Amino acid sequence: MVNGNHTPEEQHPELAAYRRSIDNIDAALVYLLAERFKVTKNVGYYKREHDLPPGDSAREQRQIARLHQLARDADLDPGFTEKFLQFITREVIRRHEQIRDEI
Amino acid sequence: MVNGNHTPEEQHPELAAYRRSIDNIDAALVYLLAERFKVTKNVGYYKREHDLPPGDSAREQRQIARLHQLARDADLDPGFTEKFLQFITREVIRRHEQIRDEI
Repeated sequence: MVNGNHTPEEQHPELAAYRRSIDNIDAALVYLLAERFKVTKNVGYYKREHDLPPGDSAREQRQIARLHQLARDADLDPGFTEKFLQFITREVIRRHEQIRDEI
Repeated sequence: MVNGNHTPEEQHPELAAYRRSIDNIDAALVYLLAERFKVTKNVGYYKREHDLPPGDSAREQRQIARLHQLARDADLDPGFTEKFLQFITREVIRRHEQIRDEI
């Protein structure tokens, strides 16, 4: 069989091993995100029940500072961590607003 | 002390408990992302060494399909999972390009 019929994984077993690690980590990330959204959904219902606003900028500032420290400890780019948290926070606020606006 | 001097956590212990869970999960996410980038960095070096392109659309399509299935299993919004993977993938490709372009 010519090379063109092989996938990169077949031609590069080392690459295939890296990709299996990435796939394992991605599965863990998806399950952790599912757990995180379960908790933030409860926060959304709690906020609606107690008439609290969907976002809380003081809390978000504390989270960003804490994650920068964690990112330094984990040797992860703090700029990426902030972008990641903003990405998650936007999604959380969107869901809190949905919950607030449900009849 | 008047209510205005209390933080939301002090006034709402149930909210404080939810937030502690979110903080634990975020720490786990940051460490997992650090591990993921460690692996993708090795992929970047491997690709440079073997003259492979930074992105691999066939691989990305397989990852997205797999993550949709995982998201269904974890009861996570598949649309969000896809946005999340695109977010991570963009960052990974950016880093692969950086590695490729290093002298």
